[in-house]
Amino acid sequence: MSKRTVFFVSDQTGVTAETMGHSLLTQFDGAEYQSVTLPFIATVSQAAEVVQRIDLAARESSLRPIVFATLVDDPVRAVVQQANALVLDFFAAFLGPLEAELAMPSAHASGRAHGMADLAAYTARINATNFALANDDGTGARDYGGADVVLIGVSRSGKTPTCLYLALQYGVLAANYPLAQEDLDAGGLPAVLAPHRKKLFGLTIRPDRLQQIRQERRPGSRYASLPQVEFELREALALFARLGVPYLDTTECSIEEIASRILDRQRLQRRVRL
Amino acid sequence: MSKRTVFFVSDQTGVTAETMGHSLLTQFDGAEYQSVTLPFIATVSQAAEVVQRIDLAARESSLRPIVFATLVDDPVRAVVQQANALVLDFFAAFLGPLEAELAMPSAHASGRAHGMADLAAYTARINATNFALANDDGTGARDYGGADVVLIGVSRSGKTPTCLYLALQYGVLAANYPLAQEDLDAGGLPAVLAPHRKKLFGLTIRPDRLQQIRQERRPGSRYASLPQVEFELREALALFARLGVPYLDTTECSIEEIASRILDRQRLQRRVRL
Repeated sequence: MSKRTVFFVSDQTGVTAETMGHSLLTQFDGAEYQSVTLPFIATVSQAAEVVQRIDLAARESSLRPIVFATLVDDPVRAVVQQANALVLDFFAAFLGPLEAELAMPSAHASGRAHGMADLAAYTARINATNFALANDDGTGARDYGGADVVLIGVSRSGKTPTCLYLALQYGVLAANYPLAQEDLDAGGLPAVLAPHRKKLFGLTIRPDRLQQIRQERRPGSRYASLPQVEFELREALALFARLGVPYLDTTECSIEEIASRILDRQRLQRRVRL
Repeated sequence: MSKRTVFFVSDQTGVTAETMGHSLLTQFDGAEYQSVTLPFIATVSQAAEVVQRIDLAARESSLRPIVFATLVDDPVRAVVQQANALVLDFFAAFLGPLEAELAMPSAHASGRAHGMADLAAYTARINATNFALANDDGTGARDYGGADVVLIGVSRSGKTPTCLYLALQYGVLAANYPLAQEDLDAGGLPAVLAPHRKKLFGLTIRPDRLQQIRQERRPGSRYASLPQVEFELREALALFARLGVPYLDTTECSIEEIASRILDRQRLQRRVRL
């Protein structure tokens, strides 16, 4: 049996359509798909090409395609809805109730996310990304005072990607400090972190998973050995407990989830909002 | 008049609810909101607390709150829907049609995005992030051969955040090479890039905007002067044209849009998919 094709069709980037579609499809076990994202579909003629492509997929499979769409323009959406597919359009479903509640018509215009608010958001995200990069490894010039949060954990526990995600998604100023052997041997809070204790958040990870990650990086090294990994993680957890630092086990978490749990637990304000 | 409160309520991170809500609300000009994200609402008793919080906001304002929800569990969703608010639940709207189309019931279980597929996605994103960091500034060990795309452009044209976003969102291996004064003076393709011409994608930006960005970084410097900025951008554009390198003006683009346009233009495969 041929795979069903899932299309993500958007007049913008397609990120919302993809996010929406993925969330929904994870609710159905065992079904397999091939995915096609078609972004920046802004005109009726582009929409007509999209329909041709969807209809071709429909003819080539015994299973009708599914289309997750975020199309603001009514005529463009009307064209896509003629495709031989289940078309789930996000704006079609929700704009009506919102117009009624807000007692105003919607703009029905794509690309609304631009303008001054967006420039401010862009700048906040870029600045936060630069901050994360400049405060990434606990060495050199550090600005823990300027940070919203300081992640601590052993090498490869997920600090860097989490800081970068917090920066790019939320504009949050996230620094990180890697707990090295000498920090763990000393057993106390590293002196540079002492003034910033309330900003600290710990990351931990299951030893077998950390060993696997380190093994990919430095195969056969002491750094990647199970005894070393177990020692570091045990000492780091003991440090978190002694200092009352909140922490999260990242083993089963996506990067989004790690970031979101930190925001929630630390009650951090997003710097990029509506 | 008091501001309307918008709630994003999710049994997961809230990213989907926020993305959905922001997309919809940008369609309504002039309305102002205050936003509250309530993630990880997984039980009926947590949902009851959410309702209390929404109802409190409703009593404190003349405007009824709006709730964007992604709640998979039927009993949890039923509780939230009793709030004194316009509740737009994403799963409520779309799961029914999908169940009919796929001819199977949905799991109605939160946290479905875990498991092996997710571990593979996590690893791909972490590896891509490390790749972006290791291939960020055109110096040191470079692996343009291993890259999916190599961004080129003058300093502060948006290369680094775009590479990191491509890595974190899509698991794409993105390197970047900053076009320095000596590259622009030489006027040809830098020798290290010559074997990878098909992977090149240029970023440009409006001179006044670049000047503003550089001014924040090094106030009063030659680097941040308008003549210097104009010279660099002019030469970079000439280089893109001479070599037939596709490029994008990032001035009016969000990071998502830059990343999405690059994927689309270069026909790059996402390494993180359904």
